[in-house]
Formats: sequence, structure tokens, C-alpha cells
Amino acid sequence: MLRSSSLVLVNQPSRDAAAHDVLGPAYCVVDVNAPHLSVMDLAATRGDGIFDTMSVGHGHPQALDHHLRRFAASAAALELLPPDAEVWRSAIAAAIAAVDPVAESFVKIVMSRGIEGDGRPTGWAYCAHSPDYTPERTVGLRVAFLDRGLRHDVAVTSPWLLAGAKTLSYAVNRAAVREAVRRDADDVIFVSSDGFVLEGPTSTVLYRRGTTLLTPGPGLGILDGTTQASIFEWAPQHGFETRFELATPEMLKRADAAWLVSSVRLVAPIRSLDGTSMSLDRELTEQLNRYLLAQQS
Amino acid sequence: MLRSSSLVLVNQPSRDAAAHDVLGPAYCVVDVNAPHLSVMDLAATRGDGIFDTMSVGHGHPQALDHHLRRFAASAAALELLPPDAEVWRSAIAAAIAAVDPVAESFVKIVMSRGIEGDGRPTGWAYCAHSPDYTPERTVGLRVAFLDRGLRHDVAVTSPWLLAGAKTLSYAVNRAAVREAVRRDADDVIFVSSDGFVLEGPTSTVLYRRGTTLLTPGPGLGILDGTTQASIFEWAPQHGFETRFELATPEMLKRADAAWLVSSVRLVAPIRSLDGTSMSLDRELTEQLNRYLLAQQS
Repeated sequence: MLRSSSLVLVNQPSRDAAAHDVLGPAYCVVDVNAPHLSVMDLAATRGDGIFDTMSVGHGHPQALDHHLRRFAASAAALELLPPDAEVWRSAIAAAIAAVDPVAESFVKIVMSRGIEGDGRPTGWAYCAHSPDYTPERTVGLRVAFLDRGLRHDVAVTSPWLLAGAKTLSYAVNRAAVREAVRRDADDVIFVSSDGFVLEGPTSTVLYRRGTTLLTPGPGLGILDGTTQASIFEWAPQHGFETRFELATPEMLKRADAAWLVSSVRLVAPIRSLDGTSMSLDRELTEQLNRYLLAQQS
Repeated sequence: MLRSSSLVLVNQPSRDAAAHDVLGPAYCVVDVNAPHLSVMDLAATRGDGIFDTMSVGHGHPQALDHHLRRFAASAAALELLPPDAEVWRSAIAAAIAAVDPVAESFVKIVMSRGIEGDGRPTGWAYCAHSPDYTPERTVGLRVAFLDRGLRHDVAVTSPWLLAGAKTLSYAVNRAAVREAVRRDADDVIFVSSDGFVLEGPTSTVLYRRGTTLLTPGPGLGILDGTTQASIFEWAPQHGFETRFELATPEMLKRADAAWLVSSVRLVAPIRSLDGTSMSLDRELTEQLNRYLLAQQS
């Protein structure tokens, strides 16, 4: 039988190092279909935790170092204990080893603040075969702009709003996608309350003007995009300059092509923005997806 | 042995009524210490669900109808199935019956969107004896104002931001309280990006000017406060007028007294606002807490 998903529980050390010693192994592979979380876990009651998701190509996690750095940055923003990189690397490897290798899988790593009052974080790594994203990567996405409600500089002025941390509190991100569907769109680009392009609910905005690849930021309280970073590393050797830019929705509509990029769906071209048609750059889209699929950490 | 907490799993009907029939009883009392949630539950991975918390005085849930109405309003905001009020009433009663009655307990009810792709919500009711809130109710709270980042009218302009719904995505609410502690405060009052007093992370703002009791709102994208509503019902027979008001932090500092009110901690006087001392109205505080503790649904 095809093993298409797996789960590894991660026994992240607590603030009390001695407590960790008696708690057994750092991680263990468990039955993915059994319940493993208490209803008192702060992941479930407060969305009080962090996650990250990386693609796995033929059994190899991609941009692993970057994902672990971002996971650590999210932990710092939420004042969680720093994730032990070696423990998480081993857990990710164990989760990957427990599914049959296919061209495209993904691993989601999660760390919550644990059960309220317990002081010990809850951690897990979940691995599964990826859905088929061929339609999104070829036909492309109809995208709606939606107000994120926050100013573009809120990460600087109000760090407790956790802008730029990948938290488990994603109810708004999901509500935004439902609103997009009501507007006959497939996905969303959030706009700051003062009118600047931010990011998608689960993706980074990328666009092209001539031979320049651009992305919003930095300093906008948005996620440090791992896929966008991989593309910016690739670009100079392939005839493209790269640039961060504070952009408005109108600037994005005037781009030669635009994409939403993310770790698992990879590079999905935008075919319309609030109903305005966008040109698809099929050649560059294919080139980028081939590169990302072939990339190994 | 004192039974101090209990857990009831709620088998909320899915969109497919037939599926519900084969799934067994509407609710069941389970071991509170065992794991009951999948790591794929959207409560844990996306904070994608709703909750409400009510106090239980000597075994009687307080303001039950109001809490169930608010729970249903939160479900509507997140486009979850309407909670079946009769099922939830029975589950709440079962959770209460499974703990030894004391003067103050609470029940927390939660409904998530369930496991991604499954279509069936996950629900539970958790009952436990309340902590002793005497210090908060008598000594009072030092409160910091913190920017909520959102305009006061965002519930009208941008409903996908879910302002005013009691969602499981509370990471920001918890980060705000950590920021308050850094500022030598105990709790927070959020202020809109355009300068209006909103609410606490887990409470409603109440203040007194002469013989008028006031609260921010309505239409500010804040929670419909069940405790504030109970107090507004009590007020006219006890010599107080009540009013909703769009208030600034300065207006709150000039009030004769101010409180943070919530279902379990009840009425906690504010003894300072951003370092400015506030007068405590001990008599009214005690009067309100006595009334709320005696109230039965």
C-alpha cells in the first residue's frame, strides 16, 4: 500500500532542560490517523504557535535551511523557545522517510506553546504527497485585491500584531480566500490600509518589468518568502535583475507578468487582477517551476 | 477525588445530514486528559474556528442564551455551519454535570472547521473550576493601551478581517498581553489605528461618568460583550443610565472609574491607564460582581 502521509511528534526541549531528559526521545513517528493533541493545546484554543511548509522533491526537502531560519524567526516573534534545528532536521527526515517518495511531497512543521500552564511546546512534522497543481501552474489564477486592514509599517510600530510571523492564527487568511471566491477569483493579494501591495494569504507576490523581477518589500510586515528568495538567487545567472519595491495595485496591474509563489504550489501565474487581464509569461513560468522542482537542499 | 474539569465532544451535524445519522450520539463525555484532536484539525493548523466562554455559578451556566447567540454569530462570520443550539445546551449541561459544583466554574465551547477536506466540524465543551480572581477584582489592573492596527470601521469595510468574531486565531491577543507585561501592566485595551478605544484582548471596556455607565461601540468590530450586556440590563433599576460611545483613550482616562469586564474574571477595576492612576469605585465593583455571581441563566 502506498504510504502517502506521515506524522512525527517532536519533543522540543522545554525551558527546564532537566525535564526534557526524562521525556524520552527527541521525536517519534506515530500513526497519522490517531488523535495526538489535547483540546487544551494552545494551537487549538488560541492559534498560539508557528508553522512552516516546505516542498520535498523526490524525497529531498527544498530550501530547508531557509525554512528553518524562518521557523526560528517566527518563534522569536511569538517569544517561543528557539526551535532546536538539529531535532527538527531529524524529525523532518523521519517524516519524509515514512512516506513513499514521489516527485512532489511537502512537510509542514508546527510548534505551539503547548498546553496552557504546562510550559512545554507541542511540535510535529507532517509529510504528505502534494496535490496536482498543474492547473494553477499553467492556466493561472484570477486574483482579487483585498484590504489587510493594517498599515504597511505596522511591523515596526506595533510588533505585537505579529505581522511577518507565520503563526497558526490564519482564520483571516482563510476568510479572505472565501471572499475571493465570492468575487469569482481563486486567490488574494492583500493590500495595506495605506494602499501598498503586501502578499497573498499563503504566497508571495512576484512580478516582472522587462528583465527585472520584483517583489514587495522589504519592511512591510510580510513573510520572508522562501520561494521568492530561491528565484532571486536563480535570476542573475539567467538574465534577470531583482528588486524589492513598494508597489501599488495599479503598478502591479501594469507589470509585464505577475505570479503568486509559494513552497508547495510553486510558481502560479496571475491571469487577472480584480478582473483586469494579465499577460501570462508561460516560458518564464515553466523555467522557474522546472528550476524549483529540480532544486535540492 | 474532586472532579475539577471535564470534556464533552460534540458531534455537530455536517452539511450532509445523512452522514450525521451514522456517526452516533450528538455528544459524549470523554477523558479530559486524553488527546482528542488530529494534528490536521483546522483548529490547530489555522486557528480556523470559534469559541465562547461562560461562567458557571454553583452549577448554573450564566447568560447561556446570549453566549449561544454570540457563538452562532461567530459561526456565521466564519461561514461555519450554524451550531445546533439544543445539542450545545445538552453538551454544556453534561460538561457541568461531570465536575463537582463549586461557586465559580466556567465552560468553554469550541467549534472548528474540522479536519481539512472532511467537511465535518469538530466541537467540544470544556468545563473547569475557575481560578481565584479576587486580586484582579479588588486590587485592580494596570492597563496599557496598544494599537490594534485596524481602523474602527473595519468590520463594515472589510468583513473578511473577522473583527468582532470570537475566533481561535488569538495569537495577537496573547502577544498583546506579553507586550503589556513588558510595559509593567497586567492587561491591554486595544485602540483602533484611527484613535478609538476598542476592547481588551479577552474583555470589554466599561466606564462610569457620574451616574452613566458607558462602553465603546457599537459598530467598532469588537465583541458583543455578554458581561457588559448583563450589566446594562442591571443598571436602570440601580440608578444608572447606560450609553454606547465612541471614546478616545483620553476620554477613558478622564472617566470617574473604568473596568475590564468578562465572563469568568467578571468585573476587574482599572487602577492605571498607561501609568495614569484611576480612581477605584470599590462599591460599584463589589455590587456588580455580587450581581453577576448571583445571576442564573
